[in-house]
Amino acid sequence: MTRFRLTIEYDGRPYMGWQRQPHGPSVQQAIEDACQGITGEEVLVYGAGRTDSGVHALAMTAHVDVEKDIDAFRLGEGLNAKLRSEPIAILDCEEVDSDWHARFDCLGRRYLYRIVNRRSPLALEAGRAWRIPQPLDEQAMHRGAQLLVGKHDFTTFRSAHCQSESPLKTLGSLAVSREDDAIVVQAAARSFLHHQVRSMVGCLALVGIGRWSEGDLRDALEAADRQRLGLNAPPDGLYFVGADYAG
Amino acid sequence: MTRFRLTIEYDGRPYMGWQRQPHGPSVQQAIEDACQGITGEEVLVYGAGRTDSGVHALAMTAHVDVEKDIDAFRLGEGLNAKLRSEPIAILDCEEVDSDWHARFDCLGRRYLYRIVNRRSPLALEAGRAWRIPQPLDEQAMHRGAQLLVGKHDFTTFRSAHCQSESPLKTLGSLAVSREDDAIVVQAAARSFLHHQVRSMVGCLALVGIGRWSEGDLRDALEAADRQRLGLNAPPDGLYFVGADYAG
Repeated sequence: MTRFRLTIEYDGRPYMGWQRQPHGPSVQQAIEDACQGITGEEVLVYGAGRTDSGVHALAMTAHVDVEKDIDAFRLGEGLNAKLRSEPIAILDCEEVDSDWHARFDCLGRRYLYRIVNRRSPLALEAGRAWRIPQPLDEQAMHRGAQLLVGKHDFTTFRSAHCQSESPLKTLGSLAVSREDDAIVVQAAARSFLHHQVRSMVGCLALVGIGRWSEGDLRDALEAADRQRLGLNAPPDGLYFVGADYAG
Repeated sequence: MTRFRLTIEYDGRPYMGWQRQPHGPSVQQAIEDACQGITGEEVLVYGAGRTDSGVHALAMTAHVDVEKDIDAFRLGEGLNAKLRSEPIAILDCEEVDSDWHARFDCLGRRYLYRIVNRRSPLALEAGRAWRIPQPLDEQAMHRGAQLLVGKHDFTTFRSAHCQSESPLKTLGSLAVSREDDAIVVQAAARSFLHHQVRSMVGCLALVGIGRWSEGDLRDALEAADRQRLGLNAPPDGLYFVGADYAG
């Protein structure tokens, strides 16, 4: 048995999310099916994170165990050939120790959220960004974001379907920047609750349009109450950027 | 009659190009149909440039004449509403003098061409960039590009279907730069021949992979012979960036 680490780019639009679902296509299943097409083996692909329906990845990390005698280059090329009709690309495939684990060894996860701040609809970025027509104050958003950095009870920013044992998480960084009409929110943490990034971005957008003050954002966090969530941002603008490991 | 200037973003993939075609969808026709849906008038939309099938625009300029009494804001909003199912967005709509002409008054046109220089297929940028797996030397490409700047007979870089009266054109600038695995070629001129940008980019790619020397590129230009074209780049990576006007 050989364990391979995969680095994967995907467009999340056609999928119900990363995780295999009984009722629709998933990124995990597409890769598992491609792998089975090469090896003839039933395999499980373990990802560093589970992205929701419509959420994209620039570089998801995953691992898979293969019995067949195949080297990393041929496996990566074979997967890309099998995945040709899907918006999924294997960016890298390499052999790792058989006890290395994409999810449990992951020390940090990074996301970015892309907002296009303009009145007109999105032609080139439809499904790839969140359009907000009202003028956004990205500096107020960045200041607000700093209130969320650190260790907090993030219940307000947590989906009802979140499977995490605790709502306590340490947000490593949350930065908001603008280039022309594109606003990017970059988030990094050891791990995130379900919907945490989208919920934080939704509330920062309320700060950006001036409907919430920074104090409102702080109050919402401190309330630790999902009813206090201002807004959940749509999946369109969310990208899993990368997973970090030791060494 | 009121003349309106439109600024338009579009994803070129579903269209046979900018120009109205008898046998398939075009950007021009989609906008004309949307306009007719608002005004009830048969209209013609004149664009600053005619992009090919699969070529995109960040900001195409066009104009249209309308008899109906409607202001620019309502026309722009109405067009976007009618175009909701198309990857076309009206970024701006404003009233202009009735003798202003999107094509004939245009003093400069700018394009960019996007290459992704990596081995793995494109998931997020499929249809939006040209993937070249071989390592590209972008500095050699930039040096080669400078040989093409200025006034030349661009017959080598001209489609057999080009309707321009003369193959003599003055290329204002052509710059190649890299950021990580993305290589961008930026081109500006008063006007371009049909396929000129794609043909120049195709030959610069040959220089980038080392198959052509800069001398080969110069020879191809000086030959003024379409048979000497090395390679025509695919439409996927080409974007009409903007049209420039006096004042």
